[in-house]
Amino acid sequence: MNGRPSDVTDSVSLAEALFAPRGVALIGASDDATNPGARPLRFLAKHGFKGAVYPVNPNRARIGGHGAYPDLASIPGPVDLAYVLVGTAGVAEAIAACGQKRVPVAVVLADGYAEAGGAGEARQAHLVEAARAAGVRLLGPNSIGLLVPATGLAMSANAAVETERLIPGRTALITQSGSILGTLLSRVQARGLGFSKIVAVGNEADLSVGEVGALLVADPDTDVILLFLESIRHGLALARFAAAAHAAGKPVVAYLLGRSDPGRAAALSHTGAIAGSDKAAAAFFRAHGILRVDHLETLYEAVPLVSGRTPSVFAGTAAAVVSTTGGGGAMAADRLGLAGVPVEGLPPASVARLREAGVPVKEGRIIDVTLAGTRPEIMRAALDAALAEDHVGLVLAVIGSSAQFHPELAAEAVAGYASSEKPVAAFVVPHAPETIARLAQAGIAAFANPEACADAIAALRAWGPPRPALARDVPPAAADILASAPDDVLDTQSALAFVAALGIETAPSLVVPIGAAAPVLPFGFPVAAKALGPAHKTEAGGVVLDIADEAALAAALKTLAGNAAAADTPLDGILIQPMVAGLGEALLGFRREPGIGPVVVLGVGGVLAELYEDVAIRLAPVDERKARAMIEEVRGLAPLRGYRNLPKGNLGALAAAIARFSQLAALPVAEADINPLIVGETGAVSVDALVRRGPRSEIE
Amino acid sequence: MNGRPSDVTDSVSLAEALFAPRGVALIGASDDATNPGARPLRFLAKHGFKGAVYPVNPNRARIGGHGAYPDLASIPGPVDLAYVLVGTAGVAEAIAACGQKRVPVAVVLADGYAEAGGAGEARQAHLVEAARAAGVRLLGPNSIGLLVPATGLAMSANAAVETERLIPGRTALITQSGSILGTLLSRVQARGLGFSKIVAVGNEADLSVGEVGALLVADPDTDVILLFLESIRHGLALARFAAAAHAAGKPVVAYLLGRSDPGRAAALSHTGAIAGSDKAAAAFFRAHGILRVDHLETLYEAVPLVSGRTPSVFAGTAAAVVSTTGGGGAMAADRLGLAGVPVEGLPPASVARLREAGVPVKEGRIIDVTLAGTRPEIMRAALDAALAEDHVGLVLAVIGSSAQFHPELAAEAVAGYASSEKPVAAFVVPHAPETIARLAQAGIAAFANPEACADAIAALRAWGPPRPALARDVPPAAADILASAPDDVLDTQSALAFVAALGIETAPSLVVPIGAAAPVLPFGFPVAAKALGPAHKTEAGGVVLDIADEAALAAALKTLAGNAAAADTPLDGILIQPMVAGLGEALLGFRREPGIGPVVVLGVGGVLAELYEDVAIRLAPVDERKARAMIEEVRGLAPLRGYRNLPKGNLGALAAAIARFSQLAALPVAEADINPLIVGETGAVSVDALVRRGPRSEIE
Repeated sequence: MNGRPSDVTDSVSLAEALFAPRGVALIGASDDATNPGARPLRFLAKHGFKGAVYPVNPNRARIGGHGAYPDLASIPGPVDLAYVLVGTAGVAEAIAACGQKRVPVAVVLADGYAEAGGAGEARQAHLVEAARAAGVRLLGPNSIGLLVPATGLAMSANAAVETERLIPGRTALITQSGSILGTLLSRVQARGLGFSKIVAVGNEADLSVGEVGALLVADPDTDVILLFLESIRHGLALARFAAAAHAAGKPVVAYLLGRSDPGRAAALSHTGAIAGSDKAAAAFFRAHGILRVDHLETLYEAVPLVSGRTPSVFAGTAAAVVSTTGGGGAMAADRLGLAGVPVEGLPPASVARLREAGVPVKEGRIIDVTLAGTRPEIMRAALDAALAEDHVGLVLAVIGSSAQFHPELAAEAVAGYASSEKPVAAFVVPHAPETIARLAQAGIAAFANPEACADAIAALRAWGPPRPALARDVPPAAADILASAPDDVLDTQSALAFVAALGIETAPSLVVPIGAAAPVLPFGFPVAAKALGPAHKTEAGGVVLDIADEAALAAALKTLAGNAAAADTPLDGILIQPMVAGLGEALLGFRREPGIGPVVVLGVGGVLAELYEDVAIRLAPVDERKARAMIEEVRGLAPLRGYRNLPKGNLGALAAAIARFSQLAALPVAEADINPLIVGETGAVSVDALVRRGPRSEIE
Repeated sequence: MNGRPSDVTDSVSLAEALFAPRGVALIGASDDATNPGARPLRFLAKHGFKGAVYPVNPNRARIGGHGAYPDLASIPGPVDLAYVLVGTAGVAEAIAACGQKRVPVAVVLADGYAEAGGAGEARQAHLVEAARAAGVRLLGPNSIGLLVPATGLAMSANAAVETERLIPGRTALITQSGSILGTLLSRVQARGLGFSKIVAVGNEADLSVGEVGALLVADPDTDVILLFLESIRHGLALARFAAAAHAAGKPVVAYLLGRSDPGRAAALSHTGAIAGSDKAAAAFFRAHGILRVDHLETLYEAVPLVSGRTPSVFAGTAAAVVSTTGGGGAMAADRLGLAGVPVEGLPPASVARLREAGVPVKEGRIIDVTLAGTRPEIMRAALDAALAEDHVGLVLAVIGSSAQFHPELAAEAVAGYASSEKPVAAFVVPHAPETIARLAQAGIAAFANPEACADAIAALRAWGPPRPALARDVPPAAADILASAPDDVLDTQSALAFVAALGIETAPSLVVPIGAAAPVLPFGFPVAAKALGPAHKTEAGGVVLDIADEAALAAALKTLAGNAAAADTPLDGILIQPMVAGLGEALLGFRREPGIGPVVVLGVGGVLAELYEDVAIRLAPVDERKARAMIEEVRGLAPLRGYRNLPKGNLGALAAAIARFSQLAALPVAEADINPLIVGETGAVSVDALVRRGPRSEIE
């Protein structure tokens, strides 16, 4: 009963209902032990839940040694949480009954909803409606349940909860995948550690990751919140939760599935084809101050590395590797390097000081203290020396065979650094689960594999605070052009005018109808001529470049019209522009990602951005400082940044263009791109643009 | 004594001396238990080595309960193997004594040799000379020793050998890093598995990985050979060993350190800057039929996946994922996709058949048999169905919580597939070391992490046989041009003539001296003019393109001369060529990689290859079929392969050019590149070339 008097009636909070219910009902509890529907009752008993537990089953008077109730209405006391264990067909009725009993939250196990597509989506919509009508909040459907180890609230159908003991801890887990509840429970408990709460949100039809996360931000028993995500849904709630977690000093660490399946929606613009959901997801995590990890092990092993720490704790400095084993140290340093984390050794003066103090350290990139490092005082001296260096922001202790034979000795020296100002982590080279468990229990992130170790440290290094809100600032002229366009897809000239109205330089242009003679140009030769028609013009062969004079222009117009006729492509006309010279071409894109919000994309112009997936993506809008960081991130823009001895492009103009373009977030634009944006020594000029109007999304 | 009569005298083979010595001497054996020099004696006794063991120490009559000998000469019986445990200063003397005692092989523990650089390299050269003079083969220096678990030959100073029991197995390990001996020993033994032999080759001053590998190819107790490499040294021996291993049906699996340190030698050509040692190493492994793994865990967990199998066993088909857990299956499939392994489900007819047979499988990319898959017969039915599909070449069983609570049940169904024609592997989702050990012991590769699992399966899929020897076929005219060049770096016109003599089309060219008037051209306008001088011409701004007529040419010549004068760059003249039009530019490079041999490199022309490290590398020479595969591999050449609706480049001409250029392997060329090689619809034309003469290397 968690200390609350039993005469409190209906007014429990959502957090109380979920995490400290006075009574729980198990609707459709089974007495067939092989049925997952029998598990919650067994688990609640096994793990010693002290609240009232009411199995509900119209066909049984007793279930698993408990008295059963024919229906919810027959239950005498308050029910704060119900687990609906019946099949899909019976769920709606159970929810209605919850409403009548004034059960504030129902967890739904059944699947066959949105995750099944088609009819399942409609079924889910009906379920949500029914729950709203009944005044019941839903967790799921397709939820394997939730756990509060400290109170034995083992309200889950996951087989892993069969475990002998649920270990309480200060880490919470929210998972979209039900089976991961068991995976992480078993892996973390194997280290002697546990969770404060685990919540499987299933399909998030009602309670989302973000809303549950907000409850955990307020939970005094939770320090770190882990997310296992199949996709980013309800991004707005997720973003708000992340901001609250940051404010409360609770790090959020996320693992996202589905990266290999590009699932790229057929998109009108280049940007759509390029952005890909995973890069946009990375931008989302970064913008909201969520650490993103790549390896499954990292998700749980990194916890001590982030717990109690704030973003940027390890930004801009190098890692030092202190190792008792040359080979293990080299492996760790190699992996860190591959993950983009610089590894640096000690300066000669520090090496000399250490040697004077009797630490037999070798000079080099790795601080190799050899076998002597198995003596705790030697390891401590080396760790202290590394931590004292200004250029070192994190120290990785690599522990060799002593971890296998003398776990207490190996763990002792490093365990004392759990609350060091600069983070200290450990990579345990041999098979030494006891040393890993000892370190983890002492609050040191201890890794069994160099790959996960490097992944965690790289994620920590990339961790920044949530981005501040940025003013929306769009010139009214741009909004007017958008509003007055006759079609959702703007014609090329309107699109260029729109871009110009945003404050981005554009090339002058002239459109002539098909079959027209070469016009008198308001700009000089050489020019380019482009057939105006469907998007992705280069596919249609509808571009002639470097047209030197009027005769060549006349020939080009004929060629383009002929090509279009031959290919049966309807043309709107032919666009003529001066050739714009520059040092390089950029692609600037804008798009609203489902669940994530508006993003701005920078890549190299032409087909390269797509070929190499070489783009920088940020949530829009961005300021010019962030835009500069985006420019640095695109490898293919190296020539513009000053490659070898070539002249540099005007990166200030490019950054300004990115920032202005990113303000599309404030307009009803679905997607847009400028391709190419030609960057020269003096400026950045848009040569072609595509703009599609569309509604703004909920999350901005 | 391994069954050989003790009166056999000196004529033991190298393999017998190393792996079945009649007597071993421990020179400098210590009686200070904390000294690593005391370990081999203790370990040999602990693990029950039956041969004669002779501690040698002039200062002690007894060591660790054994009678000690003041010197080698005092030992009565034959000594086939000596471990030199003395400090660096005493090693040379010990080797000389080994010669006098006619000890065929000495293992040297001391460090301070080539791995220490500088004076260490000279010291190592002296040691090798001394050993040759004494008629003693060396293992090391800097060798932590060797193990033969089946006979208790625990001749190592690695602390991990302190383990209670050395488990014999059918896998051998050769490692350059000493500490990895302990790492892999502990990790593999934790699965209840072991090794046939472990050999730490140290600095490979004499006995190399390849030479030791050849012994293991002949070893009847070894099925699979693992290599832990810090770098590729003695590539020729390594290549010969790999070929012999292939012929013997013994897979070789390699892990290579040092990937994050590009260590790029200052190179004259673009190729040198691009190739990087890791990509060349990958080409080496591939060409010699060695599986290359990326994760530490993979090195040992993948063994059952390759043991007894031949290359290409899983080439060209997809993996199927049969899972008892949706989340775990999705994680595995996601990782496989990221590693480039296609994952496919069952066709509807097969799903229907399975369902009729009572297997509750869902349709989709993952063959999700749900909790029912915890019943062995259900899992078997699903595995059989997947294996029966022609498009499936490997099946991954993903085992959920049953692995944790019912290891015998979870392992049972999958264990029966160890000798399945198509490989079957397992990913164990929860913490379940017992299930993993059971599976591994049954001969199923069982992974605890989805990342290593995908790494192993991707390595298996990429595994091919060693390349066949390819005829060297160089036109004599090319050899003549090379031989008659006055300098090692050919001037541009000679380089282009050389390329033409190889049978690769080149653009016509004319060179005019600085200050000359515009010449009469033997080809039409437009032309390009390039200042001839140092390499990397684009850095000097010494190129003018698209010169339209004679007047423009005169102006360009002046500009180039002026630029050069202003930059104080000495020029050899100015090269004039017609502008060559094409659909794209390729870079073709050739280089001799230390230890690896000649490689041919294909990338995109211009700076892109370097920016994106987007190159295909193969050992040279290659035939046109391999050249086509290289073309497919370079992302940036997508436009030439027919991107969207654009015309395709003449890939046949490009492949022919690659094959011909790769024949530089047969000529004394140190490095060369053609950049750009302009590829159009009709052919591939070299516009610029760089050739540096240099000696051929030992390994070709």
